[in-house]
Amino acid sequence: MEVELREDERLDDLGRNGYRIIQHPKKFCFGMDAVLLSNFAKVEEGEVALDLGTGTGILPILLEAKTKGDHFIGLEIQDESADMAKRSVMYNHLEDKIHIVTGDMTEASDIFGLSTFDVVTSNPPYMIGGHGLTNPNDAKMIARHEISMTLEDLVRETAKLLKPKGRCYFVHRPFRLVEIMSLMHQYKIEPKRMQLVYPYVDKEPNMVLIEGVRGGNPRLTVEKPLIVYESKNVYTKEIREIYYN
Amino acid sequence: MEVELREDERLDDLGRNGYRIIQHPKKFCFGMDAVLLSNFAKVEEGEVALDLGTGTGILPILLEAKTKGDHFIGLEIQDESADMAKRSVMYNHLEDKIHIVTGDMTEASDIFGLSTFDVVTSNPPYMIGGHGLTNPNDAKMIARHEISMTLEDLVRETAKLLKPKGRCYFVHRPFRLVEIMSLMHQYKIEPKRMQLVYPYVDKEPNMVLIEGVRGGNPRLTVEKPLIVYESKNVYTKEIREIYYN
Repeated sequence: MEVELREDERLDDLGRNGYRIIQHPKKFCFGMDAVLLSNFAKVEEGEVALDLGTGTGILPILLEAKTKGDHFIGLEIQDESADMAKRSVMYNHLEDKIHIVTGDMTEASDIFGLSTFDVVTSNPPYMIGGHGLTNPNDAKMIARHEISMTLEDLVRETAKLLKPKGRCYFVHRPFRLVEIMSLMHQYKIEPKRMQLVYPYVDKEPNMVLIEGVRGGNPRLTVEKPLIVYESKNVYTKEIREIYYN
Repeated sequence: MEVELREDERLDDLGRNGYRIIQHPKKFCFGMDAVLLSNFAKVEEGEVALDLGTGTGILPILLEAKTKGDHFIGLEIQDESADMAKRSVMYNHLEDKIHIVTGDMTEASDIFGLSTFDVVTSNPPYMIGGHGLTNPNDAKMIARHEISMTLEDLVRETAKLLKPKGRCYFVHRPFRLVEIMSLMHQYKIEPKRMQLVYPYVDKEPNMVLIEGVRGGNPRLTVEKPLIVYESKNVYTKEIREIYYN
């Protein structure tokens, strides 16, 4: 394989179609949130999907493996992450299916045009602002904190990018659910489906998965709880199926 | 006991302080939603709480039994339900603690004045509008459908009635969560705490409990799931504790 790994990078097996992804463990590795989002999102045959803030490209690669979508685009502001994503696409011979674009998600509708996509996904930074950060240029910081964009930027751009009745899928932290829902409602991508992810059946949820429909009618379906662990280090059947099926 | 029961009414034991409540089984009986709301709501020592759309007075009576609140007021638009509530208050000798007022919740801030209450509770009608109803004057219909008020009326009046930093507690159906959160955010009673009630661990939730704080900062705590049944007809330990402790 002629794709080059740079210092401290490694190739991780995705357990799906033999795909692998280039990651830099000291900087940022994808987490369960990306995997759960790729399972929650639906991309139908022939559809085109955009991932905003794609990082090392985990979402487009997993969605290409799991769905019949026609085409997957990942937008990433950080050159280094985008470069890793591009090399992972080459490694997996997915150049015809996945395109990684280096650019700013706050300008995504200028880059791609209005009403362009059937599906928009995002696993955005969870933390508000960048106050008190020692190194706001750090890849991990940009991935986790709203330094280069805000939640409102994400929702506004998504509303512009989606075709009418197009769908978006986000994963976020439950503590920001009110903002997410209020902004989606305000920008007319109505939340239609939501699932809370609880680490254990008797613990507070630490993730929320949400689907919105551009121009959808107000009526939310809240799905059954997604519980991660049965006991310490033992995944529930449902999580095992998401990872290994 | 000199309190009079009318035709088809019965006195139901509340399993708490020896309290009973007058209900009319053909018209409306309180459900698990009222019990869970009385458990989710916090009324601190010395506080005054208003229940909007109190029906037969179940919330004020349960909150009087469970909390150290100073005073509880129930507002009910239907004469017959309000009359039953008043007689239940007398039956339990709670005339000094609970007052039932007959009136329209859309005018609640005119009736009681602005910034009056520490706590507002409501178990409002869940269904949108009154379309297609055969008997919109029926007590059960008014309790279940937004005939005499809308969700926006409830949130707007609650925002006017609460003192700054006062708290409200609502129970509703999850399918309306986006509207609830958007309206609360818009009327500046920020959702701060939420719990979803799942009938079984592998089923969609059928109730949501939500706490808002007038003028609160945006940050929601989503609590652990509240699961009702362990198996058919067998309550979980948590539900048994709510009912019987």
